[in-house]
Amino acid sequence: MTPEISYVIDTFFALFAFVLIIFMVPGFAMLEAGIVRTKNVTSVLMMNTMIYAVASMAFLLIGYSIAFGDFGSDSMSMWAAFLFQMAFVGKVINIMSGGVSERAKVIPLGIFAIIMSSVIYPLVVNWSWGSDMLEGTVFDLTMYDLAGSSVIHSTGGWALLAAIMIIGARHGRYPKDGGVRVIPASNIPLVTLGAFLLWIGWFGFNGGSVGSIASKESANAVALTILNTNTAGLSGAIVSGLIMYFIYKKLDITMVLNGALGGLVAITAGPDLYNIYQPILIGGIGGLLVVAAVPFFDKLRLDDPVGALSVHLVNGIWGTLAVGIFASNPAEGITFFGQLKGVITIAIFAFVSSYIVLFIINKIIPLKVAHDEELEGLDVNECGVEAYPEFKRAF
Amino acid sequence: MTPEISYVIDTFFALFAFVLIIFMVPGFAMLEAGIVRTKNVTSVLMMNTMIYAVASMAFLLIGYSIAFGDFGSDSMSMWAAFLFQMAFVGKVINIMSGGVSERAKVIPLGIFAIIMSSVIYPLVVNWSWGSDMLEGTVFDLTMYDLAGSSVIHSTGGWALLAAIMIIGARHGRYPKDGGVRVIPASNIPLVTLGAFLLWIGWFGFNGGSVGSIASKESANAVALTILNTNTAGLSGAIVSGLIMYFIYKKLDITMVLNGALGGLVAITAGPDLYNIYQPILIGGIGGLLVVAAVPFFDKLRLDDPVGALSVHLVNGIWGTLAVGIFASNPAEGITFFGQLKGVITIAIFAFVSSYIVLFIINKIIPLKVAHDEELEGLDVNECGVEAYPEFKRAF
Amino acid sequence: MTPEISYVIDTFFALFAFVLIIFMVPGFAMLEAGIVRTKNVTSVLMMNTMIYAVASMAFLLIGYSIAFGDFGSDSMSMWAAFLFQMAFVGKVINIMSGGVSERAKVIPLGIFAIIMSSVIYPLVVNWSWGSDMLEGTVFDLTMYDLAGSSVIHSTGGWALLAAIMIIGARHGRYPKDGGVRVIPASNIPLVTLGAFLLWIGWFGFNGGSVGSIASKESANAVALTILNTNTAGLSGAIVSGLIMYFIYKKLDITMVLNGALGGLVAITAGPDLYNIYQPILIGGIGGLLVVAAVPFFDKLRLDDPVGALSVHLVNGIWGTLAVGIFASNPAEGITFFGQLKGVITIAIFAFVSSYIVLFIINKIIPLKVAHDEELEGLDVNECGVEAYPEFKRAF
Repeated sequence: MTPEISYVIDTFFALFAFVLIIFMVPGFAMLEAGIVRTKNVTSVLMMNTMIYAVASMAFLLIGYSIAFGDFGSDSMSMWAAFLFQMAFVGKVINIMSGGVSERAKVIPLGIFAIIMSSVIYPLVVNWSWGSDMLEGTVFDLTMYDLAGSSVIHSTGGWALLAAIMIIGARHGRYPKDGGVRVIPASNIPLVTLGAFLLWIGWFGFNGGSVGSIASKESANAVALTILNTNTAGLSGAIVSGLIMYFIYKKLDITMVLNGALGGLVAITAGPDLYNIYQPILIGGIGGLLVVAAVPFFDKLRLDDPVGALSVHLVNGIWGTLAVGIFASNPAEGITFFGQLKGVITIAIFAFVSSYIVLFIINKIIPLKVAHDEELEGLDVNECGVEAYPEFKRAF
Repeated sequence: MTPEISYVIDTFFALFAFVLIIFMVPGFAMLEAGIVRTKNVTSVLMMNTMIYAVASMAFLLIGYSIAFGDFGSDSMSMWAAFLFQMAFVGKVINIMSGGVSERAKVIPLGIFAIIMSSVIYPLVVNWSWGSDMLEGTVFDLTMYDLAGSSVIHSTGGWALLAAIMIIGARHGRYPKDGGVRVIPASNIPLVTLGAFLLWIGWFGFNGGSVGSIASKESANAVALTILNTNTAGLSGAIVSGLIMYFIYKKLDITMVLNGALGGLVAITAGPDLYNIYQPILIGGIGGLLVVAAVPFFDKLRLDDPVGALSVHLVNGIWGTLAVGIFASNPAEGITFFGQLKGVITIAIFAFVSSYIVLFIINKIIPLKVAHDEELEGLDVNECGVEAYPEFKRAF
Repeated sequence: MTPEISYVIDTFFALFAFVLIIFMVPGFAMLEAGIVRTKNVTSVLMMNTMIYAVASMAFLLIGYSIAFGDFGSDSMSMWAAFLFQMAFVGKVINIMSGGVSERAKVIPLGIFAIIMSSVIYPLVVNWSWGSDMLEGTVFDLTMYDLAGSSVIHSTGGWALLAAIMIIGARHGRYPKDGGVRVIPASNIPLVTLGAFLLWIGWFGFNGGSVGSIASKESANAVALTILNTNTAGLSGAIVSGLIMYFIYKKLDITMVLNGALGGLVAITAGPDLYNIYQPILIGGIGGLLVVAAVPFFDKLRLDDPVGALSVHLVNGIWGTLAVGIFASNPAEGITFFGQLKGVITIAIFAFVSSYIVLFIINKIIPLKVAHDEELEGLDVNECGVEAYPEFKRAF
């Protein structure tokens, strides 16, 4: 294969992967719009649209060069390489914004999105996938994280944890007399549509992260990556569904879909390293962790309407460690310790930097809407537009 | 073109086709969620999610090796070849599950999905596209069925017929004083969205079934296949729309969309064999058959909420026979008799095996929900989650 | 790269672009279904489905040969070339139909769709991209319009202007005592979903219009085109959002999404000609123009429920002129005057021919529904099917 043929095929493939990832924009938007109450649906959609717009723009103008130094790329068109990386950045913020929905304001979160996508996330990428300014230091990351169990999902998850700690829970979620008030999803078809658009986007996320398809070995690696990604999602769905059924005798679809997403996050660090059966275990544990983590975070009174901490943070950590457990290969520098070090380094940096930035923003523009605005719903107050104005509310 | 280049391109193309087919998962889910009543929407979505999960997993663990013997593939990555085939299996079960929605339980249908995708469907594939264990026997299938008018759509349709015969109609659908009670679709935008996602998925289904794009001839065959697939869908939509308009003076969108799907099923056996005008006739007859078959099945009191028997079974048969009529080519072994034999063999095997398995399952776990659970809606009873809890019902 | 390899890759790439564009079919359908009132949703969906069916079929049977002379293509499979062009035609009509929704009848618009897609639009394509029957005459178009800011978007926009002038406004939109009655969108998640499906489709629209990906230069041009397309969309969203926020202190999501679409239309004439920062300006002006044009058309009492005149007509003109401003290159025949001449020629032809055809159709079958049918809603009267029959209306 001549260099020009592989350049063309890899550029085409990167654009294909990019497009799949962009399906995650409506994916996240529909998932979250379906989960929140009807009074907050427009606000959530505005948040997702705003994040795609400002985070991508900030990454174009600032973030990309922090992460990768320049627009250079040898194996494919540098514009395709940029687009593929740009598609990732909004996802990190989406992970965060979903978990503070129904009470966080769009404007200050937009400011955070700009800082996150121009500095915080690009620094994590720099150390993990990019030009690596920490090389040779004690902080040098040697973990293997193909498509970002840690770099994307944990980073977003730690930022979310910081945001929830600062913003607090939705009104009435944790009544004073104890317990947790269930707030049901308002539109299950949208949740399902969103989850499957995310699932499809993951094929581009993970498959494209192999970086090339233009050789027999690369083509096999891409196909194996997509196969294993899918298998982990299947397994996460099955395990979470079975657990819920055995406990409650009900097939809770939001938990099944979150279980699938948990499995997908868990496989993301090393889908190219496993055989075709290991993802059943890794994704299955991902589903199990989601089912276990959702009540755990509620016990900590960390209110996360979409379950993003359970899906992305917990499974981002699990997926990164799983590489060290199932695909440890000291000859290639993959060790459990290296994976653990990566998890901890990203945890500290992403959590602390997000906390500081959010804390400062919160002092200038409060992140949380006023109490009565929260009760009335964010749609009217933030957006001036109700999501379903012609539909009569049942309550 | 070197073998490595074609290996790479065909692997990439198979992954592209695979991804398109996976859009059929939300496609079926949205179509069915839009057609059923609001009280059964979550259940239908759970059913579709469950089917994708367990059917794909069963095909990975058992079905694929029954169908194809091993994971070998010469012309592309075996993992891509597997993914492409795996994407088909859930569709067969989706065809079946949609037609028994609003009264079938998720768990026993899940058990049937496992058996169907690990044994029944793989055997049909084995005889038609696979390693062919019937070769040399009187049952040897010689029909031409590029992307599964019979292998996918009729097989699913026969399983559905068996299921409807065992499960029976929805309460109130066929009142004792005769006639048919119309049960309107609850969410037309979802029906439309679902139908177009299926339509798009079909491009991957049929285009990918050509098996290679890595030569001038193959590239032409793939492009012709996708063109003819689309044309048949257009024609099915136009014909069914015109018929409904001339009879009722109304443009019935669900019938138009089902007409399009009927045209798509009809073309699926031989889109690569026709010139660019024949699909107008084949798809148009597909649309006509849908319009005719829907009241026919109601006359037989076979209650099929989504029209799957009309779309998939009737047009699966028609499409397979159409190859024998319009593309008969005895020199290449394509004869009307060969097509008819294929239709009959698959009919007998798929119907009888599905009937037996469903009959046995039904004795152990009843396939149908209890009468009062059906009246109250499956969402609350099966899933514990309403689809639209905040929206006030009009009745 | 051998001719066969580039033939294969370009055919595959054209099919990829085609599929992305087809996502615009549900894209337009969801966007419009979300914007109109619940009583007109089925009608809008029927209109979109009908347009895809009859416009594509008319283009297959008549339009394509008017535009391009024959089915020949050297650099890729002629069937793939046809599919790519066919995917465009429905969009032109969609632009038009959306702006007359909530009062235009399906059948006469279907007749117009046939004439538009078999004659009017193919003639515009002939002069701009096709075999050019005007070559050597004073009307010869020399403008640069890569993916149709003028050829697609202005043409559709001029047809829409003609249609609105003949059909008139929705009842109650412009009360006799002056002002404009706001008619809120009925389903914001559908609007958002539709807008993002359109956005994704645009990558195929513009990227595919480069015509080839099978060389290093072409691959770079395709990737740059998709990057710049996306950037213009981001910028349009940001600018329109900021303007609305500074004026009204609300984040109006429909305006932000329309701003994004305006930016996408504006970049469409020359995304391959700009550096990676110019689209920020071009798309940003696109967003600004949308915000300014919406009240302007209302002042003229041109009632356009989806804002299609502002998005497609105004930005189609702006995008075509922007090429003359930012990418003027007299050596290659790109001048501001050439762009302006193209804008004017298409304006005159598309507006006059559409007006005449619509005027004649209107004399035979009135384009507008009867007054009481409009009040009751088009769904019941045109389609016999309500979009959300089980949901209680708030008013």
